[in-house]
Amino acid sequence: MRAYDIIAKKRDGKKLTLSELEFMVSGFVKEEIPDCQMAAFLMACYIKGLDIEETVTLTQVMASSGEQIDLSSISGVKVDKHSTGGVGDKTTLVLTPLVASVGVPVAKMSGRSLGHTGGTLDKLESIPGYKVSLSMEEFVGQVMRIGLAVIGTGENINPADKKIYALRDVTATISSLPLIASSIMSKKIAGGAEAIVLDVKVGSGAFMKSQKEAEEIAKLMADIGKKAERKTVAVITNMDEPLGFAVGNALEVREAIETLKGKGPKDLEELCLELGAQMLLLAKKAGDLSEAKSMLKEVITSGKALDKFSQWIVAQGGDGSVTESYRCLPQAKIVSDYLAKESGYIFSVNAEEVGRAAMILGAGRESKKDKVDLAVGLVFKKKVGDYAEKGEVLVEIYANDMEKLDQADTIIDNAINIEKEKPKKKPLVLSTVKE
Amino acid sequence: MRAYDIIAKKRDGKKLTLSELEFMVSGFVKEEIPDCQMAAFLMACYIKGLDIEETVTLTQVMASSGEQIDLSSISGVKVDKHSTGGVGDKTTLVLTPLVASVGVPVAKMSGRSLGHTGGTLDKLESIPGYKVSLSMEEFVGQVMRIGLAVIGTGENINPADKKIYALRDVTATISSLPLIASSIMSKKIAGGAEAIVLDVKVGSGAFMKSQKEAEEIAKLMADIGKKAERKTVAVITNMDEPLGFAVGNALEVREAIETLKGKGPKDLEELCLELGAQMLLLAKKAGDLSEAKSMLKEVITSGKALDKFSQWIVAQGGDGSVTESYRCLPQAKIVSDYLAKESGYIFSVNAEEVGRAAMILGAGRESKKDKVDLAVGLVFKKKVGDYAEKGEVLVEIYANDMEKLDQADTIIDNAINIEKEKPKKKPLVLSTVKE
Repeated sequence: MRAYDIIAKKRDGKKLTLSELEFMVSGFVKEEIPDCQMAAFLMACYIKGLDIEETVTLTQVMASSGEQIDLSSISGVKVDKHSTGGVGDKTTLVLTPLVASVGVPVAKMSGRSLGHTGGTLDKLESIPGYKVSLSMEEFVGQVMRIGLAVIGTGENINPADKKIYALRDVTATISSLPLIASSIMSKKIAGGAEAIVLDVKVGSGAFMKSQKEAEEIAKLMADIGKKAERKTVAVITNMDEPLGFAVGNALEVREAIETLKGKGPKDLEELCLELGAQMLLLAKKAGDLSEAKSMLKEVITSGKALDKFSQWIVAQGGDGSVTESYRCLPQAKIVSDYLAKESGYIFSVNAEEVGRAAMILGAGRESKKDKVDLAVGLVFKKKVGDYAEKGEVLVEIYANDMEKLDQADTIIDNAINIEKEKPKKKPLVLSTVKE
Repeated sequence: MRAYDIIAKKRDGKKLTLSELEFMVSGFVKEEIPDCQMAAFLMACYIKGLDIEETVTLTQVMASSGEQIDLSSISGVKVDKHSTGGVGDKTTLVLTPLVASVGVPVAKMSGRSLGHTGGTLDKLESIPGYKVSLSMEEFVGQVMRIGLAVIGTGENINPADKKIYALRDVTATISSLPLIASSIMSKKIAGGAEAIVLDVKVGSGAFMKSQKEAEEIAKLMADIGKKAERKTVAVITNMDEPLGFAVGNALEVREAIETLKGKGPKDLEELCLELGAQMLLLAKKAGDLSEAKSMLKEVITSGKALDKFSQWIVAQGGDGSVTESYRCLPQAKIVSDYLAKESGYIFSVNAEEVGRAAMILGAGRESKKDKVDLAVGLVFKKKVGDYAEKGEVLVEIYANDMEKLDQADTIIDNAINIEKEKPKKKPLVLSTVKE
């Protein structure tokens, strides 16, 4: 078998077999197949596509390219959650203790990734002392003891995805549905989850711009899950404006804690209840969605979810006082108010531009080497549909650099659109896709 | 400008501008754009195509990526010739002295390339002493003095094509008409030719399998030539069986000399007269094709063409005695006869398989590092349409290794098809394509 012939086969739009996909992926991981051949292959896959069978095969080949986590020693149905990513998305920080406090074990491995703000790991690292690296024994042991743990994905988990993603990132082959779906699902499968809840975002701040496209990839991932015997449910959610109020690592930790206290933004709470309820259903902890949501609301009201959060943070070496005071979190030197330039309704907030403003402030990384500034970011005071008087504060900008602050201010100015008429708001949860 | 965006643009089937193509090619030559990005780009070009304007632009950008040869000090119209390559194609060795002896100056740069047998340079190197490297002054000086010179393409001529071709060779992006056309034409343009005759081969032993496809690429190259102000004529020729009798470097030199003596194979002579006549027309040395052919036949009969060959070889340091005796050429240790297994007409000879047999004997190179064995190869005793008695010699196999000889013998056995009925022979020259 030769890489050349496999590239040519996909170039001509033909269907690849298990052994061909296996040959390409394992050869690339072992560095027997050079970047240039893999790049040509990925471009051929991008343009000519992969059918569902090829996508399932690719997913399984990638998942088994490294260590696969065995969570069988933990009792209960292990449910993982994945979001396709959005601006201000801190759901993992809320959801994990929320479902753990009603008895769904969560053994989660997370990434840093590139993006507008850091990944879940960066956010957690804004809590002093929090350790993102645990040995596999410590990781599984902690889940058995307290019901949850969130760590960084180990180097030897799914090395194929890491190498392939890095190459796609520079060769304009990211935005392919089968390549995205196989990347996400192979990580979840290698991570040992028995069931998976996917949050597929759609809108101006998301990768998917149309609901149809989001539903298409959701269906693809659900199908992959089914073939791999992992129950998978995808929730299609709207991402036309940032999620919640806060965008930026430490600022998002604050907002997550407020949400666990029952004082968070309505949209974030609604999303966490929806995704959490789906996780409960997959874990067979509730009979239907409304029962599941009641159980989750109950642990928020009782304080059990917040306690679980503290227990988790402390178990991983973090400062547990964070739930009582945010003073232990990194603080920005400058807090500047962005004021409404006219009176009217917040008609739209371009989430992608908000993300760009956060990135410029230092909250995210453009390349892997960039260091994230955990303190900086944005806190909105109004959401789409709210009324604002001229001169009212719309956004607090947290910065450590005057020049970056000015740049962010200009971007925010363009991102917020105020109109006389009240906008029609789309629902947050657009649809649900199952296998 | 970013390589990423240009890759994405072609991936989405959009048309690229001069500055975008210039950015990709010069960035790649300067090694600012890595192989993986260029590989993804080339695959996108392969699948989505390049239109005529893009192809012309790419050709010009590649031609100007290095030194461009200035032949203006040589008087007369400088005509170059290029063949898309076939099995047993030694036309350059015949054509160059042939047209030079009627006053068309030929300043030719040639490659070694990969293939069934070596390139023109390898063939010439089987003549002891022949120097393939001359300084630019020596090269131009020799053409001014004796009317012809054939040397290797310098490292700094069209570096873009060299780098891009090497990448295409491993990423399954060779067989794209615009990429082939721009590669060929950029070399000819950088080489300084004012007019170009193309020999576009079609058939089992050629890259193009159908006449339609061959005419398509011929038209494309003629159009590129026109836009670049180089008169271009393409002759579409049949390559269903090997050209002439000999396949293999020193064996082809012998056959070329025989042809200059008027004793060569009919098909080779016919092709050289056709291509040579087109060169004479472009150089305005003759009024029409039949007049041009008469002029060429005349220099064969008179011995002027053979004298020009000797003069050329000696001028470049080679052993001029080769025209009188082939003893100075490398000789194979073993000559084995392949005999007809039955009586009948030679119905077909698979040229590609014959090429493979020559390659296995050592006449060609599979990878750039391979050393070519100049002595080995095949000499056919019969052509398609000839009748053979059982036990008659069909092919002489020249080898230096018994094992390779056996392999070649088996391939030849499969490549030759003998039938009771006489085959219909296609004409050698199928059509002519002009701008």
